[in-house]
Amino acid sequence: MGSVTRIRTRILGIDPGLRNCGWGVIESEGNRLRFVACGALKPPVNGPLADRLAALHAGILGLLDAHAPDEAAVEETFVNAGPRSALQLGQARGVALMTPASRGLPVAEYAANLVKKSVVGAGHADKVQVQLMVKTLLPTADFASADAADALAIAICHAHHRSSLELAKRA
Amino acid sequence: MGSVTRIRTRILGIDPGLRNCGWGVIESEGNRLRFVACGALKPPVNGPLADRLAALHAGILGLLDAHAPDEAAVEETFVNAGPRSALQLGQARGVALMTPASRGLPVAEYAANLVKKSVVGAGHADKVQVQLMVKTLLPTADFASADAADALAIAICHAHHRSSLELAKRA
Repeated sequence: MGSVTRIRTRILGIDPGLRNCGWGVIESEGNRLRFVACGALKPPVNGPLADRLAALHAGILGLLDAHAPDEAAVEETFVNAGPRSALQLGQARGVALMTPASRGLPVAEYAANLVKKSVVGAGHADKVQVQLMVKTLLPTADFASADAADALAIAICHAHHRSSLELAKRA
Repeated sequence: MGSVTRIRTRILGIDPGLRNCGWGVIESEGNRLRFVACGALKPPVNGPLADRLAALHAGILGLLDAHAPDEAAVEETFVNAGPRSALQLGQARGVALMTPASRGLPVAEYAANLVKKSVVGAGHADKVQVQLMVKTLLPTADFASADAADALAIAICHAHHRSSLELAKRA
């Protein structure tokens, strides 16, 4: 019988936003998932944009310190709004992508419909379906907001994809 | 006779971009301007987006260490492209705004046509006119790229506006 080395990986999922930035930390070991923590960062809504982005950066640095994830995953923003909204969203997303990378973590990106497909099995699932499946896959998950559930879904999606990549490397 | 306290302020101007991020440092004292340094940051064009943004962040932190500016100014991006380009630009701009703010610097934002108006006197000046006026206002400025000249123009615009604000406060 071959021996299988199980490596436990901590994953930080981020659903970027300047007002509500959802986050979720899970552990992945083989094909098992374990809930660690989740929540939403809420930088001040007033004041200069640079200070609001700096608050988001400080919040994510705080999560890295508190939960010591090994890898991060961020949702690829679906741009169906106008260019002004896309610019706004891009600013928060740039900070969300950059902050874990500045600490040396690999940061993966997944399209929103791939996240839904990984978690629910369908690319066009609604928010409630995503929340139900996150709760099923992570029974101890305690999320107060849809943003936190989305961030956990992103982390789950990354756990599935990184396992497939590991298996492909071993084969 | 009243005494006027002249305070020397170092200003970092940033023209954000992921491939070419122009920067320029000037000193402003009363109505006098002095060129300090300028250049362009060029994060790697390949590799994961998060790592490219982290390289931009590290580059700007390096400028803050090397030139110790007191204040920063960033151009407000003019969005005439599609939402996908706006998102891309927003990501670099978020990092450019956030990085000086994360060190406690005030970060001002100026619309592109206000920058041109401050430097050239007209909101619709072209790149060559901006470069000529930057060279006239900062005779020792040595810029190799249009991005560096634009960043110096942003710093000059901020110097003018902050002086007006100071005078208004004193009146």
